[in-house]
Amino acid sequence: MLKEKLLSSIREIPNYPKEGILFRDITTLIGDGEAFSSLINHLKERYQSQNLDFVAGLESRGFIFGSALAYALGVGFVPIRKKGKLPYKCVAKSYALEYGEDSIEIHIDAFGGKKGARVLLIDDLIATGGTAKAGVELIEEIGGECVEACFLLDLVALGGSKELEKKTKVYSVLEIE
Amino acid sequence: MLKEKLLSSIREIPNYPKEGILFRDITTLIGDGEAFSSLINHLKERYQSQNLDFVAGLESRGFIFGSALAYALGVGFVPIRKKGKLPYKCVAKSYALEYGEDSIEIHIDAFGGKKGARVLLIDDLIATGGTAKAGVELIEEIGGECVEACFLLDLVALGGSKELEKKTKVYSVLEIE
Repeated sequence: MLKEKLLSSIREIPNYPKEGILFRDITTLIGDGEAFSSLINHLKERYQSQNLDFVAGLESRGFIFGSALAYALGVGFVPIRKKGKLPYKCVAKSYALEYGEDSIEIHIDAFGGKKGARVLLIDDLIATGGTAKAGVELIEEIGGECVEACFLLDLVALGGSKELEKKTKVYSVLEIE
Repeated sequence: MLKEKLLSSIREIPNYPKEGILFRDITTLIGDGEAFSSLINHLKERYQSQNLDFVAGLESRGFIFGSALAYALGVGFVPIRKKGKLPYKCVAKSYALEYGEDSIEIHIDAFGGKKGARVLLIDDLIATGGTAKAGVELIEEIGGECVEACFLLDLVALGGSKELEKKTKVYSVLEIE
């Protein structure tokens, strides 16, 4: 019921960003107050007994889901950003793109020096999973424990979630073949 | 009391991004679950009787405050993004930078075709106000009414909020001389 509602609120854009790709536009979901609330309430229910210390979101659509969930749970939100965007000392991790590579960063003291902080990683979508894997590694590198990686959408055929399960638990609200 | 608490949770980074600039790092505030909750609850109290239809956030720190507030109010969240990041048809607006210019975009149907949608614009900080002014114009251009522009921090000496008041109401949680 929730899943059908959420799925129907995601807009499909054919041939974006290039020919042959069917892009899932989540702005129509988050712009629908009822659908957005339902999603965050569903995640709140899943995680409220998990004793999380932080929700960490991947720039920038992960910020939208992550900060609302952090607020719902009453925990801190930690942004993981593209290289050069965070102002304080960072740890960086590179990941492969279709052509070349990119990197993301986290503040070295993002968990306030709390060793073993229980952290949920969140993003809108997992495809090949390169960014998410780098995100999990960053959380661990500064002393956190990635309790789970959570996505609204899993593009299952690309195999990212299966690969990521070697490193952490993975939960996706919606799976698309 | 709230203001002192919020102000003390913002980290000051001298000479970032360049010599002579004292950068206000809000990641320490949002990473503190108690401070982040207090801020969003304060904004929820301010806006819950305003019959808002949407909260619109400016990429990307505005996403962090805006989506949590939209969830708290039970309304939709609308991202206003840097050029080329939104997948559907957009309206764009340019604004001046120190050198050159940049532009931001909003989906043309971000308010679901609702004429006169009541929209709150939000960002972390207002300095000279160029981005915020462009944001207000985008909201109006697609048929929304910008009820207020809201910021965590106003760098008052730069005059942006005073200028923006010619276009819409402005509220800043914290003012810094």
